[in-house]
Amino acid sequence: MINRSLRIGIAQINLTVGDIEGNKRKILKYIDRAAKERCNIVVFPELSITGYPPQDLLLKTQFIEDNLSALHEIIKKTRRKDVVSILGFVDVEEDIYNSAAIIYKGELKGVYRKRFLPTYGVFDEDRYFKAGRTHGLFLIDGVKVGVNICEDIWYPDGPGWIQSLHGASVIINLSASPYYVGKREFRKRMISTRASDYASFIFYANLVGGQDELVFDGGSMVFDEEGNLISQGEIFEEDFIITDIEVGSVLRRRLHDPRRRKKELKETATFIPVCNREFKFKKKKSKLVEDISREEEILRALITGTRDYVVKNGFKKVIIGLSGGIDSALVAAISVLALGKENVMGVLMPSRFTSRQSIEDALRLSKNLGIKTFTVNIDDIFKEYLKTLKPHFEGRSWDSTEENIQARIRGNILMAFSNKMGYLVLTTGNKSEMSVGYATLYGDMAGGFAVIKDLLKTEVYRIASYINKREGREIIPESIIEKPPSAELRDNQRDEDELGPYKDIDPVIKEYIEEDRNYHEIVNRGHPPDLVKRVISMIDRSEYKRRQAPPGIRITYRSFGIERKLPITNRYKQWE
Amino acid sequence: MINRSLRIGIAQINLTVGDIEGNKRKILKYIDRAAKERCNIVVFPELSITGYPPQDLLLKTQFIEDNLSALHEIIKKTRRKDVVSILGFVDVEEDIYNSAAIIYKGELKGVYRKRFLPTYGVFDEDRYFKAGRTHGLFLIDGVKVGVNICEDIWYPDGPGWIQSLHGASVIINLSASPYYVGKREFRKRMISTRASDYASFIFYANLVGGQDELVFDGGSMVFDEEGNLISQGEIFEEDFIITDIEVGSVLRRRLHDPRRRKKELKETATFIPVCNREFKFKKKKSKLVEDISREEEILRALITGTRDYVVKNGFKKVIIGLSGGIDSALVAAISVLALGKENVMGVLMPSRFTSRQSIEDALRLSKNLGIKTFTVNIDDIFKEYLKTLKPHFEGRSWDSTEENIQARIRGNILMAFSNKMGYLVLTTGNKSEMSVGYATLYGDMAGGFAVIKDLLKTEVYRIASYINKREGREIIPESIIEKPPSAELRDNQRDEDELGPYKDIDPVIKEYIEEDRNYHEIVNRGHPPDLVKRVISMIDRSEYKRRQAPPGIRITYRSFGIERKLPITNRYKQWE
Repeated sequence: MINRSLRIGIAQINLTVGDIEGNKRKILKYIDRAAKERCNIVVFPELSITGYPPQDLLLKTQFIEDNLSALHEIIKKTRRKDVVSILGFVDVEEDIYNSAAIIYKGELKGVYRKRFLPTYGVFDEDRYFKAGRTHGLFLIDGVKVGVNICEDIWYPDGPGWIQSLHGASVIINLSASPYYVGKREFRKRMISTRASDYASFIFYANLVGGQDELVFDGGSMVFDEEGNLISQGEIFEEDFIITDIEVGSVLRRRLHDPRRRKKELKETATFIPVCNREFKFKKKKSKLVEDISREEEILRALITGTRDYVVKNGFKKVIIGLSGGIDSALVAAISVLALGKENVMGVLMPSRFTSRQSIEDALRLSKNLGIKTFTVNIDDIFKEYLKTLKPHFEGRSWDSTEENIQARIRGNILMAFSNKMGYLVLTTGNKSEMSVGYATLYGDMAGGFAVIKDLLKTEVYRIASYINKREGREIIPESIIEKPPSAELRDNQRDEDELGPYKDIDPVIKEYIEEDRNYHEIVNRGHPPDLVKRVISMIDRSEYKRRQAPPGIRITYRSFGIERKLPITNRYKQWE
Repeated sequence: MINRSLRIGIAQINLTVGDIEGNKRKILKYIDRAAKERCNIVVFPELSITGYPPQDLLLKTQFIEDNLSALHEIIKKTRRKDVVSILGFVDVEEDIYNSAAIIYKGELKGVYRKRFLPTYGVFDEDRYFKAGRTHGLFLIDGVKVGVNICEDIWYPDGPGWIQSLHGASVIINLSASPYYVGKREFRKRMISTRASDYASFIFYANLVGGQDELVFDGGSMVFDEEGNLISQGEIFEEDFIITDIEVGSVLRRRLHDPRRRKKELKETATFIPVCNREFKFKKKKSKLVEDISREEEILRALITGTRDYVVKNGFKKVIIGLSGGIDSALVAAISVLALGKENVMGVLMPSRFTSRQSIEDALRLSKNLGIKTFTVNIDDIFKEYLKTLKPHFEGRSWDSTEENIQARIRGNILMAFSNKMGYLVLTTGNKSEMSVGYATLYGDMAGGFAVIKDLLKTEVYRIASYINKREGREIIPESIIEKPPSAELRDNQRDEDELGPYKDIDPVIKEYIEEDRNYHEIVNRGHPPDLVKRVISMIDRSEYKRRQAPPGIRITYRSFGIERKLPITNRYKQWE
């Protein structure tokens, strides 16, 4: 029978790395839900049992064993559930494999092992896994289904293509695809193309939530055999997406696709029979969500990343140094959106160089947000440092040393609050500062998590203004958005006097770091050679600072996170 | 003619990552030397032009191009040098390859591309390179030579085996093999076995010097076709090792090795002719060095790693906080051995909790070392912090907060000296502390380089005593070695009251971190369950601290360096 129908649920859930027990419970809950909703199949994200990415936990034999025990418990507990569950786990033979289990009524019907292991950017899978050689073909309720995992679908001639040539009408891909700006569009276009190339339905199940530097945006998708998006999950939220399909259209499409007939398969492969039921759905279900703006997308990424880092690490409250500037204002606003105002504390730490305007701005921000603040004047401590160091620094003039001392006093005070009260310190440095090293190690860089570490200063302003617009009222005071940024570590200091205007340096930073362009290429794109040299030199010189920076949320294709591996000891020079 | 002779020089040199210009000059100098010494061949370490490991520099197209330009300049400049040069560079075609160039008299005679790319531990080569498929067979002065690179020789059926089956009598391996305790013996045994398996001479050319966390120990080796070590380079020093061989013995050995006749080769491959000269050597040259003790080996690794980090990063002087304890004493002693006493400064930063004994010990150490010291009492600053924070901490009792404040004051002061004078701060934490998190982030962890980060406390004592023995006088005062270790952040504090005896916890740390054994396995090896749980819990909880720690020298198979990739957000529990 050609035209069978299927109801497939995608469990787009937020899992936690290492929390095998918690992940198992959540998976069981969703299997239950899928059975109640009369789904034929329920699909979970990649490595659902272990969380993604498990990194070096994969080198612990007990961890692998615990993951298998959890799998077998899930199998046992779904004996009476009339739904096929497809979920991610670590399979073992002579080595370990990033795998998908196909489970039905208390039996492990089959296993697919990921074939393409990404080892670039934030991915390191070749370090841990062996590549699989299984076919991933299953016969489920009269429908030929191909199962593959994440990276597999990014290759034009990957497993999905082969599975479709073998006759699979439905391709299911279990993913854990980390977010960066622009990826959602790129991913959507690519999977749509695969669906029409394969002339198959594609169910793309993505993970959601934050894990250290990574955020997963969810937004799972279903495409029909023409590449039309027919169903989609929420963006940056947990979701359970039910989609009903009738697969008869696949054959019709294939009869009209001359490309497929030319292809000969090297190997024969058989479809593993899983079950053969027929559910009828009364009303065809699917779900589409509205597109969100670039600003909303970034903001949700920051909220998700912050909330999950704090909560998954067992914290409840955070503490932030409020300078009256735009960076700390944005971090405070994001934290309130992520954790609620009762869980965010602000600390004002004025010195002799802090303007009245800054204090007023910080207090106004706190009032707008409804957060509690402490005020700790650092000047007496600062004086004591100067007095103590005077005999040693005699005859030397004021320089960045004295500025850094102030920043480090603030770091010490924030950490004291953190130690005493158990709050997590959030740092407030942005990507422009992190790039050129305009930040004090152990000073303003002191803290557990760097919320806007991957956001250029010009983007910081954009997101700040967007928050005010989104909330329909002033959250971040206009005066903060309008005044020139200053570190206020000496009189009349202005960032842009020292660095140059952010509007000029940000594009250079972007081209050098995110696009890996060289000096000549950047100059040829119209930036002044002196500026480019200065910015590149500052970036190269600051690698040692970034090595000791707290992790922060990845927003761009190349953040200062696990995907960046530049030597500190590095004499490479692009010019002279 | 069966019995040809060859003189091969190994240039065991210290190269710098990214310093293409400097590396090129050094390579040319050694080619010159080899020609003067009438070598047939001179061999350089892996990736000699770029330095190893170049990491993300390999993602920069200009870097690849600059490396090719340097290669071509070397080729041009050796037009009149009557020696075959074999050196490492990055080759490009549709992708990049970790390669060896075979150069003779102004011509690139051939290229070998590394086949086995290590992607585990400290290695990440699959991220950057494509695996090669070249044969690496060359005919040099009538001798069949096989060339391969580092990891290639670690596989029993790797390129060296194939090259020998094709008839190569001499196998040349270009390496950059990072040091850890025990590796030298392991490597020697393995290469000796390969030589007798291949029935070939093996010339193993290793890199020497420090690069961020890695140290390369040199100790290049030459084995004859029976697996006898016939020549060796200095350990942890630059060297130029000349070895003269006569290859006639290879055929004799092969005629008696029945294993080789059974092997059939799948592919045919030809030897690329390079040159055909005949030099006669009057006196057969070779070199053997004396074995060194485990302590001497570790000490040299620490000296090399420290010296190269400081010098290659453009520093001259270092500054160290001297507590009067064993860790800072050892770091100061190593620094003096690495940089000379005139380049090492000590800072004593006593507080109300510092014993007279500690101050005396620190001063005595400084006198023994001949280094300059500063004394900065932190108590007034500490009082000022307590006063400033009092209104906020009212009603809360003294806890680790107040201890951390002191450690962070010291961090601030050390960094002030660093900022003002341009000295690099060396941190003094050991591996036991780094493991269980017995260290203050931004406090005693503040600094650019962590010399003994990978040395357990029990090893710290061992190396300290060894230094006194080696120098034949008291460098590190006996009283420092004998007194119980204390952080002195409150009255009567003793490390071992808080952590347990180091002699008990160090083996647990070693088994958990270096051997990746789990709780049950460690308990089964005879450690008390409570202790094991406590140590493992402390280690797991401290991942966030280590993420912000400065890099330090890798001494063991698993340090807290680039080879460790554990998630911070990680709910994995081994028990309950």
